[in-house]
Amino acid sequence: MTRKITIALDCMGGDNAPKSVIDGVKLASNEFKGEVKFLLFGDKSKIEDLIGKNRIKSEYEIIHTDDIVLPDEKPSIAIRKNRKSSMALAIEAVKSGEADASVSAGNTGALMALSKIILRTLPGISRPALIQLMPNTNKSCTALLDMGANIDCDYMNLCQFAVMGVSYYDALMSKEMPSVALLNIGSEETKGDDAIRDAAGFLKESKLSKNFVGFVEGNDILTGKVDVVVADGFAGNVSLKSIEGTSKVFSKFLKEMYSSNIFTKIGYLFVRNKLNKIKETLNPEKYNGAMLIGLNGISIKSHGNANGVSFYHAIKNTVSLVKSNINDKITTLINELEN
Amino acid sequence: MTRKITIALDCMGGDNAPKSVIDGVKLASNEFKGEVKFLLFGDKSKIEDLIGKNRIKSEYEIIHTDDIVLPDEKPSIAIRKNRKSSMALAIEAVKSGEADASVSAGNTGALMALSKIILRTLPGISRPALIQLMPNTNKSCTALLDMGANIDCDYMNLCQFAVMGVSYYDALMSKEMPSVALLNIGSEETKGDDAIRDAAGFLKESKLSKNFVGFVEGNDILTGKVDVVVADGFAGNVSLKSIEGTSKVFSKFLKEMYSSNIFTKIGYLFVRNKLNKIKETLNPEKYNGAMLIGLNGISIKSHGNANGVSFYHAIKNTVSLVKSNINDKITTLINELEN
Repeated sequence: MTRKITIALDCMGGDNAPKSVIDGVKLASNEFKGEVKFLLFGDKSKIEDLIGKNRIKSEYEIIHTDDIVLPDEKPSIAIRKNRKSSMALAIEAVKSGEADASVSAGNTGALMALSKIILRTLPGISRPALIQLMPNTNKSCTALLDMGANIDCDYMNLCQFAVMGVSYYDALMSKEMPSVALLNIGSEETKGDDAIRDAAGFLKESKLSKNFVGFVEGNDILTGKVDVVVADGFAGNVSLKSIEGTSKVFSKFLKEMYSSNIFTKIGYLFVRNKLNKIKETLNPEKYNGAMLIGLNGISIKSHGNANGVSFYHAIKNTVSLVKSNINDKITTLINELEN
Repeated sequence: MTRKITIALDCMGGDNAPKSVIDGVKLASNEFKGEVKFLLFGDKSKIEDLIGKNRIKSEYEIIHTDDIVLPDEKPSIAIRKNRKSSMALAIEAVKSGEADASVSAGNTGALMALSKIILRTLPGISRPALIQLMPNTNKSCTALLDMGANIDCDYMNLCQFAVMGVSYYDALMSKEMPSVALLNIGSEETKGDDAIRDAAGFLKESKLSKNFVGFVEGNDILTGKVDVVVADGFAGNVSLKSIEGTSKVFSKFLKEMYSSNIFTKIGYLFVRNKLNKIKETLNPEKYNGAMLIGLNGISIKSHGNANGVSFYHAIKNTVSLVKSNINDKITTLINELEN
């Protein structure tokens, strides 16, 4: 029998918490019944109310907390003031080994700060990074990191991000030799700042030389030209937000177009199936759950505005990450990097 | 009578040159007949062949050049080797006062280097930047700079970009008090690196204090939340390319969807008019022509893959810029910045 996986959940973080979290747990418990146990951190009476009469089908335990991290709390304050919050205690459960991973939809800055200070970085990793999969037009996914944890990075940070990205992609997509590239503003060797050029030089001569394919630009991320795109947290965040913003604009245009008159409404009926397929492919809910990668333990950030369905996907992605032994992969690869 | 505007064109730069350039000139000459004179730099016999029997309706002059800047020429080489190229001589015509502006679809790096060395920066401006308008969902346009001319910028570079962006927006969109923001990875004051935070601090106390609205993120660019978005050339380029890439993905999805079967083809007919309106709004051809702003003269970069129609739009946008006296606006505002 395989060991049961335990997931610690911050039930109080996010715009729609705790409802979104409990809804997500209910959906996940149908799928992972018997396989996953949930530790629910937060306001016990609220959580019990939400669970209601429809018992959750998986094993679970409620750990009452009075404190929560506010959405606008500064990270530096949160790590001093909120150590007994639902967010902090969920991460502490990972640290102590009671849980295999934690998930929170709360304050991103506080979550990163608490995760770093509680879990600490893996040996050989200087800084953790935020990583997530995005759908691409090559019928697969692209992993992007760092999505905003570190605004200034030196070349070795970027090389370590490459190691973490490759390990993550292998873990989630079962691809042993994912390709990896550095985000730049041109493909020529002379482009970019010193950190990017030095990282390229290092990776070319490293254990990752076969994975490393050079530079890509912002328009290459969604095409699936490479499996893993590495950037500092500023460029990564700008790129992610630009992609998200443009997607929203197109969705809005289409929605307005189809609802604008009787002809377009009829037109919609002819393409509804195809359009739903595209929506399903791009569905951001499915890709919910960014990992703060590079720590001694798995800490997952759900979108702050997640509903029950997208929180369920964050749990599902977390289960896959736990099963994949991702941190073992990173540790092995980081030790070999310079050989 | 208003003075005739003279535009110097590098007829040999770009994937489809010289045909795209001459096609663009023919279209523009219908519109600006009598108002604009063209100086055509490049291979005289090729240009004459393309002009053919259908004479161009505007006044024009062909200046033969043997040398052209190759697409992969390094900027550092181009400024030494290609000083008699069609690109360099078009810019020299601006410098000498023979032309009011130059347009080229050639090698971007070489164009920036040649423009900088020939035209030099305006008094009070340390570095020029690439700026362009993009359509937004607020039924207007957003100007983004720097789109890739400078990868590392200090706070004063960013403040000068803000001055140039505001002047550009006023010039092209006739809005006296455009709003301007710095591209960042969050709206809180603590976000970003020193350069961005210091620029924000400076702008708040400067002559631009009424224009300056703080930080925006990558997803705010297309919504028209602000008129002018300022970034260093790395983040600006990453954002621009990410937006372009995402737009292409959506266009491809829609094209494939509508052409996939008889039902979707019928569905297309019901929305064709609306869809064409959206296409017209977003049409990248209309927004062709990025200005290398901050120089003693107007140097415009057309998309490298421009066809005749988009080159025509680059010419049209150039004429507007010449008429607007943009450099006078910049000079006035930069002198007042610290007061």
